[in-house]
Amino acid sequence: MTPPAAVIRAKRDGETLTADVVHGFVDAFVRGEVADYQMAAFLMAVVWRGMDDAETWALTDAMLKSGRVVDLSHVPGVKVDKHSTGGVGDKVSICLAPLVAAAGVPVPMISGRGLGHTGGTLDKLEAIPGFDVRLPIERYVEQVARIGCCLIGQTADLAPADRRMYALRDVTATVESIPLITASILSKKLAEGIDALVLDVKVGTGAFMETRPAARALARSLVRCGKKGGKRVVALLTSMDEPLGYAVGNANETAEAIDVLRGSGPADLVEITLALGAEMLVLGKRARNVRAARAILQARIADGSALAKLREIVLAQGGDVRCVDDPSLLPRAEVVRPVLAPRAGFVGGIDARAIGIAAMDLGAGRRRAEDVVDPAVGVVVRKKVGDRALKGEPIAVVHARSEGAAREAATAVCAAYRFVRSRVRAPKLVLERLG
Amino acid sequence: MTPPAAVIRAKRDGETLTADVVHGFVDAFVRGEVADYQMAAFLMAVVWRGMDDAETWALTDAMLKSGRVVDLSHVPGVKVDKHSTGGVGDKVSICLAPLVAAAGVPVPMISGRGLGHTGGTLDKLEAIPGFDVRLPIERYVEQVARIGCCLIGQTADLAPADRRMYALRDVTATVESIPLITASILSKKLAEGIDALVLDVKVGTGAFMETRPAARALARSLVRCGKKGGKRVVALLTSMDEPLGYAVGNANETAEAIDVLRGSGPADLVEITLALGAEMLVLGKRARNVRAARAILQARIADGSALAKLREIVLAQGGDVRCVDDPSLLPRAEVVRPVLAPRAGFVGGIDARAIGIAAMDLGAGRRRAEDVVDPAVGVVVRKKVGDRALKGEPIAVVHARSEGAAREAATAVCAAYRFVRSRVRAPKLVLERLG
Repeated sequence: MTPPAAVIRAKRDGETLTADVVHGFVDAFVRGEVADYQMAAFLMAVVWRGMDDAETWALTDAMLKSGRVVDLSHVPGVKVDKHSTGGVGDKVSICLAPLVAAAGVPVPMISGRGLGHTGGTLDKLEAIPGFDVRLPIERYVEQVARIGCCLIGQTADLAPADRRMYALRDVTATVESIPLITASILSKKLAEGIDALVLDVKVGTGAFMETRPAARALARSLVRCGKKGGKRVVALLTSMDEPLGYAVGNANETAEAIDVLRGSGPADLVEITLALGAEMLVLGKRARNVRAARAILQARIADGSALAKLREIVLAQGGDVRCVDDPSLLPRAEVVRPVLAPRAGFVGGIDARAIGIAAMDLGAGRRRAEDVVDPAVGVVVRKKVGDRALKGEPIAVVHARSEGAAREAATAVCAAYRFVRSRVRAPKLVLERLG
Repeated sequence: MTPPAAVIRAKRDGETLTADVVHGFVDAFVRGEVADYQMAAFLMAVVWRGMDDAETWALTDAMLKSGRVVDLSHVPGVKVDKHSTGGVGDKVSICLAPLVAAAGVPVPMISGRGLGHTGGTLDKLEAIPGFDVRLPIERYVEQVARIGCCLIGQTADLAPADRRMYALRDVTATVESIPLITASILSKKLAEGIDALVLDVKVGTGAFMETRPAARALARSLVRCGKKGGKRVVALLTSMDEPLGYAVGNANETAEAIDVLRGSGPADLVEITLALGAEMLVLGKRARNVRAARAILQARIADGSALAKLREIVLAQGGDVRCVDDPSLLPRAEVVRPVLAPRAGFVGGIDARAIGIAAMDLGAGRRRAEDVVDPAVGVVVRKKVGDRALKGEPIAVVHARSEGAAREAATAVCAAYRFVRSRVRAPKLVLERLG
């Protein structure tokens, strides 16, 4: 094995590392023979020098193989998952997974929790009383085989190198690196046992990638690295300049995702769900093209089978299935306070990050990873970009645990709105497709 | 205090850190609030982005103030020390310190140990039976005041941040950074209580800085950073393409340093000693210029007062003072094996690093910091660059503990020599002066 300092030195000096060297370094880290400080220096050297496709794949593969790789080969069909780089109001997984599963493509989905201004699918699912996201891998495999979909959280034995490396990156300013982000996302996703992956790379003020070139570079890297690993990967660049849908929180987002499956979801959320779902159906060989795939998905919503699939999933994972038919049974906060338009005009912009932070401050999100999330609180925007508001009309509603918290959130939400005099177009949602 | 990750991020992004931020980060590291992995990532970011003079001084100052700063203000005169960036056969400190002290300039000198192919002053001094380099700071201060010189090792309370940071740099490939090297050297040296410093920046195959531009950049940084700290610093760039003097080891180097004080040292060693000593006398205001200073130093050698000063130092530090008058009393190895010229010719080059490694392999140096050094073993070169050798004539002598070790060393030493047909000039010793 190349000594750790020599590996760090090589990357520091801009050399290209062989797959053997990358594997040796990651394996030694997992065994405790590369210290955290050596990994931290290595990560900073990667931020500095980057990695080419072969190195990025080697890193992904080493992280993937640091733990268990789920075997779903006995499940018929092409197993397809979706991953989003995270945004505000992004509850897509909750409607997308049952919808795609209802269309016949198995969706093995391992999701994360919220941090900072962005929410997490697990927190939203847990708003359903009793819903268990901590199933052992055996039950996950069984459920995917039986009903075509399972929604759980990462277990300790999947890509443990990623968990330890991400914890280090978070505190050493080494998060912002395309090869490191690529390896982190793909190692976790490939450990699920999938055959193909659709990526929702968010772009904008509420996203991790704020500019389109940055998002495109990440999407390209993900697609190319997936290919190196023999997996088909398609990426959509989607807009995250205002919250997706109306709801930002946990229970309220889950309710909104259920609305999509009932055929009554917000237009932008429905559009993103169909766009991603169509790619999944094509990858899953259930449709020849996205146009045909959209028709199938719309039919699954219309005939109630997508909603029925969600019921099946909730039931299988111990959740209160009545919530699917009556989302008003989901947790609700005591204080509901409208946010009134300070002037008349058109909504020119909504700072998605500020809305996400307001929701986090209400208790819907985490400032630190160890924080506990309150499923009931959050923000529901009423007016989106392009909408017209009269002075004093409610532009949003805050759901809080106290009047004080509601007041603070209302002020923050109001400040996140930008009004303009003349009519504004609603932003384009799907900006680009790569793969 | 700026959060650690924000400090790392700022340096990663090429920002200039304020003195407050640098101090806060180093102080927090010493208190244990910045983790080793955060310091490692920061160090790599500094290797990447560098530091300007103000940042380098802030880092030096923070490291200096992480521990005790010795107060020698009650000792009359300008206190001047010398620091060398390390080479092969570099025993200069052992003759230079008593010589300069004999000329009336107090020399408070805290030295290091050898590592890899380079030796260390402490190891060489300890070849004198009983010589104690671990005096407490109080005795060091008292001895500098009383006899004008003390030669000890670093104590735990001097620049502890440097010790911890250096340990990290060593294993994270973050040694090679001019601001980090500058801060490491100066923080340790300024903690001694000096007023001025002469630096011997070695250039060549046996030195840390192998090229003249690299050595010049380091020398410049040291001089400028010293000035920022209100200390006069002069740097000489000196050649390290062949071993300095003849002896490489510990007892043999100490004996050779004693030869200098007796007026019979090798020409190159005498020249470097006088060049550095002259700068020290000028900084110490004991001479108006280096020409006058050299005359004073030569007089101190000729009248025996420099040798008498070494006797005083050895006596004060518990060493066997008889060794000063009879270096044959120093430890000697059982096996003495000549290295014979494989062909006739002029010595065109001697790979100083290879000679240093041969001596280390004999036991004179350390492969790892925890290794124990054997004072008796080593290599004595007989022919230096420019010298003529007949085929079969001894070009060097190996002092070893076993025939096997001697044989291996002899092979390595022989391979380190390059012979040429035509006459070669002896290399220039002092290449440049900065300050």
